[in-house]
Amino acid sequence: MPTIERPLTVITKYLNKPIKVVLKNDLVYGGTMVECDGYMNLVIEKAAEYQGDGKKVKYSKVLIRGNNIIYIQLTPVLED
Amino acid sequence: MPTIERPLTVITKYLNKPIKVVLKNDLVYGGTMVECDGYMNLVIEKAAEYQGDGKKVKYSKVLIRGNNIIYIQLTPVLED
Amino acid sequence: MPTIERPLTVITKYLNKPIKVVLKNDLVYGGTMVECDGYMNLVIEKAAEYQGDGKKVKYSKVLIRGNNIIYIQLTPVLED
Amino acid sequence: MPTIERPLTVITKYLNKPIKVVLKNDLVYGGTMVECDGYMNLVIEKAAEYQGDGKKVKYSKVLIRGNNIIYIQLTPVLED
Amino acid sequence: MPTIERPLTVITKYLNKPIKVVLKNDLVYGGTMVECDGYMNLVIEKAAEYQGDGKKVKYSKVLIRGNNIIYIQLTPVLED
Amino acid sequence: MPTIERPLTVITKYLNKPIKVVLKNDLVYGGTMVECDGYMNLVIEKAAEYQGDGKKVKYSKVLIRGNNIIYIQLTPVLED
Amino acid sequence: MPTIERPLTVITKYLNKPIKVVLKNDLVYGGTMVECDGYMNLVIEKAAEYQGDGKKVKYSKVLIRGNNIIYIQLTPVLED
Repeated sequence: MPTIERPLTVITKYLNKPIKVVLKNDLVYGGTMVECDGYMNLVIEKAAEYQGDGKKVKYSKVLIRGNNIIYIQLTPVLED
Repeated sequence: MPTIERPLTVITKYLNKPIKVVLKNDLVYGGTMVECDGYMNLVIEKAAEYQGDGKKVKYSKVLIRGNNIIYIQLTPVLED
Repeated sequence: MPTIERPLTVITKYLNKPIKVVLKNDLVYGGTMVECDGYMNLVIEKAAEYQGDGKKVKYSKVLIRGNNIIYIQLTPVLED
Repeated sequence: MPTIERPLTVITKYLNKPIKVVLKNDLVYGGTMVECDGYMNLVIEKAAEYQGDGKKVKYSKVLIRGNNIIYIQLTPVLED
Repeated sequence: MPTIERPLTVITKYLNKPIKVVLKNDLVYGGTMVECDGYMNLVIEKAAEYQGDGKKVKYSKVLIRGNNIIYIQLTPVLED
Repeated sequence: MPTIERPLTVITKYLNKPIKVVLKNDLVYGGTMVECDGYMNLVIEKAAEYQGDGKKVKYSKVLIRGNNIIYIQLTPVLED
Repeated sequence: MPTIERPLTVITKYLNKPIKVVLKNDLVYGGTMVECDGYMNLVIEKAAEYQGDGKKVKYSKVLIRGNNIIYIQLTPVLED
C-alpha cells in the first residue's frame, strides 16, 4: 500500500515559486508564495489580483486566509 | 459486526490512478491523484477543469482543498 | 436511563446493503454502501445519481464527503 | 447556583418516543427516535417527511445528520 | 485587570426563567429555559414560536441547537 | 520580535464600557459589555438594537453568540 | 526541504504598521494593526471603513473577528 504524503507538506516544495490561488468569492491571486502554514494560510509576494479578463491590482505582500481557498495551481497552465 | 475501514484510507488505493472530483461550486476536476491527506486535500496531476459541456483549462498540477469536495468518482462512469 | 448507541456505529449494520443518501445540494445517491467512517464519509458501489424524476449517471464507485449529507435512508421507502 | 444538565443527555429520555425534527432546508421529519449521539445525529423509525401541507414520503429507518437540525420538538404541539 | 466570567456560565442564572431566542433563519422562540449546555443547546418549555406579527405554534418542550442562535434576550424588553 | 497579545484578552479592558457590535446579518447592538468569553460570546446590558437609521428595540440584557460577530467597535466613532 | 514559517507568526512583523483587511461581506478596513492572535482576530487603531469609492466611517479602535477575513494587504498597493 502506498504511503500518504500530505499535500500541505507538498506545498513547501513550491515556496519561492510562482503559484495561482482561486478563492471561493471568484477572486484569483497570482504571485510568489513566500510562506504557508497547515491551514493553507499563504503569504504571496508581488501578488496580482485578477477579476474577469485582466489584472486589477498589484500588492507587494498579501496574506490569504486558507479557508477561502478552493484550489492552488502549482504549475503553469498547459496548452489545450 | 463488520469493521469500519476508513474511506480516507481507501482513497490511498487510488493514488496514481485517474479520479474525478466534484466541488461545491459545480467545478469538476479530472486527472491523476498523486497525493492526498486526512482532510481530503488532493494533488491532481494533468488536471482538466470541466464546466458545463466541455473541458476548459488544463493544469499540470493542482492542489484541491478538501472541504470544497462533494464527492470523488473513483472509477469510470458505467453505461446506463 | 437508556444508553446511547451511536448512529455512526449503527451505520455499520448497513455495510454491504443498499442505502440512499440525500445531500445538501439536492443530489441523491443510491447504491451499496461498502465503507464508512466517523465523519459519515461513505463509499458507495454501483452508485446511481438521481436528479429530479430519473436516474442520471451511474458510477461503479463513489466516495461521498460526509459533511454534505442531510440524511441517509437505511431501508426501503414504505407504502403510503 | 443550579447545575447544567446537558440537553444531549436529556434527549435520551425521549428514545423510543415520538419526536419531530426541523432541518435547515425546511424539511421536517416525524417518527420514533430510536438512536442518538453527541452530535445530535438521530435515527428515526417509521419516519414521515413533511413538506408544506401534507406528508410526502415514509421511511422505515432514517439517519439524520445532526448539523442540519434547527430544533427538535420533544412533545406534542399544545393547543393555542 | 477584571476577570472573564463566561456568558455560558452566566446563562445558568436564567434557568427556569423566561427567555427569548432569536435564530439565524428569523425564527424567534420564547419560553422557560429549563436546560442548557456549553454549545448553547437549550431546552425550552411552554415554547412559543413567533413569526412576523403574532404567535404561531406552541410546544410543550423544544430542544434548540445552539449553532443556530444569534442572540438570547435574557430579560424583558425595555420601554423606549 | 514583538509579542502577540491576544485581542480576546484585550477585550476584557472594555468590560463595563460602552461598545458596539456588528453582526453578519446586519444587526448592530450597542450597550455596556458586562461579560465576554474566548468565543467572543458577549453579554450586553442596556442594549439597543439598531437597524437602518434609528434605534429599534432596547433590551436590559442580551447574550450575543460570538460566531455571528463581524467586528466590535471598542471606542466612539471619530469625526471625519 | 525548506521549513514552513507560519504566516500567523509573520503577521507579528506588521504590528504597529498600516495594513488593510478585506472581509467576506466586501467591507474593507485600513488602519494600524496594534494586536493580533492565532485566529487572525485583529485590533486596528485609527481604522477607516471603506465601501465602494470612498471612506465611510472612522473608528479609533476596532476588533475584527478573524473568520470574516479573506486577505490582509500587508504593504502598500504597487503601481501597475
